[in-house]
Amino acid sequence: MGFKWVAFDVYATLIDREQGATIAFDKIAKRNGIRVDGYILFEEWHNEVIRIYRSNIDFIGWKEAGRVAIGKLFKKFNVEGEIDDIGILYESFKDWRPYDDVKPVLEELKERGYKLAVVTNMDTDLFFKTKIDVDLDLVVTSEMAKAYKPNPKIFEYAIEEMNCDKSELLLAGTSPWADIQGAKISGLKIAWINRKKMRERWMKLNAWDPIPDYEFEDLYGLLKVLHRRVNQQSA
Amino acid sequence: MGFKWVAFDVYATLIDREQGATIAFDKIAKRNGIRVDGYILFEEWHNEVIRIYRSNIDFIGWKEAGRVAIGKLFKKFNVEGEIDDIGILYESFKDWRPYDDVKPVLEELKERGYKLAVVTNMDTDLFFKTKIDVDLDLVVTSEMAKAYKPNPKIFEYAIEEMNCDKSELLLAGTSPWADIQGAKISGLKIAWINRKKMRERWMKLNAWDPIPDYEFEDLYGLLKVLHRRVNQQSA
Repeated sequence: MGFKWVAFDVYATLIDREQGATIAFDKIAKRNGIRVDGYILFEEWHNEVIRIYRSNIDFIGWKEAGRVAIGKLFKKFNVEGEIDDIGILYESFKDWRPYDDVKPVLEELKERGYKLAVVTNMDTDLFFKTKIDVDLDLVVTSEMAKAYKPNPKIFEYAIEEMNCDKSELLLAGTSPWADIQGAKISGLKIAWINRKKMRERWMKLNAWDPIPDYEFEDLYGLLKVLHRRVNQQSA
Repeated sequence: MGFKWVAFDVYATLIDREQGATIAFDKIAKRNGIRVDGYILFEEWHNEVIRIYRSNIDFIGWKEAGRVAIGKLFKKFNVEGEIDDIGILYESFKDWRPYDDVKPVLEELKERGYKLAVVTNMDTDLFFKTKIDVDLDLVVTSEMAKAYKPNPKIFEYAIEEMNCDKSELLLAGTSPWADIQGAKISGLKIAWINRKKMRERWMKLNAWDPIPDYEFEDLYGLLKVLHRRVNQQSA
């Protein structure tokens, strides 16, 4: 295995999106008179955000898609909502927390000689509000690449920045459609971080979906396949 | 709308795959002692074929993936099957029939000044066994492009052959993951031919999937949006 780089998806892979988003959407629901659990509401909104940026032929920013999506959500729940309230979610990014396995596993991978990156379907400013607490060698956001996963353009952008061969990058991510499918049509190997405790309804593989190269319940699984790099001095 | 080309997915969009495959898989089931409806068996096999070619980083031919898939199917049903019997399906391609709307709609589109293509996730020889009965201006198979939809490589190959701009091509297809998702990450417009009578279980959109630009129950819907081309003489 000749991996030199490990690139991580961020939200739901490194960061507990569920906890962060539930608190924000509980507030948004309350302020706008929607009597639905914050997490359920977040999931409805998030599906719509994804649908918007995947349907548009021209690139649309994540926050911009989010504003359109909250408008649709208010319409669906038949309330006169305040579009700007979606800012409550965006502001909350600074409070979202990494999962407990992030710091120990990523630091161990650095120790073992791997370079670490993130490749995220996110606006750049919101990503940089998020505290990951590990030194990264590269950050790639959809806003930088002007493309969202699973579009190979974002992975090609990353590979170019890494100045490495595709075979030297392992992607670690959670989303079947963005990370697994994206990696496969981009010619990359993928470790599926399938955190069983998550409530997300979209984390399922259909019988015709590509099979990930590895599947782990948390990031510790990566340590089983990413051993100390022999030539790390000369890398 | 500046479309000059219409590119069709083939199997399940132009060709009644259900009828053709059921007959062949009824035979394969009988010869190998599997007591399951031919169509159900075909669907299981076909899911596996797709999973194989989507999981492989290197390009693998459709017939080759099909041989691996039939081996897995025999194993699943716990029978000592004859791998070569998958040839019964491949031979049957010559008997698969186009849907009734294919000839009238495609000929009307030619009459209206559009160039017609197919873009299919299929080996070239099997595609050319299939009788479509309409003159096509271009055929693109995954074997030619060395990539399967939804990989943008196959659409880029098609666009190059068409010598046109992306905005001048309308894709018409049935598969959410191959055609709708493939079109969208390739920057193409897509008409979803969602033939309601089909038994396929994979023809569903998730809440986070891209929305097709058009959705029609059959090919006649295309005639509503593809009017006579004004400059067809000079095209």
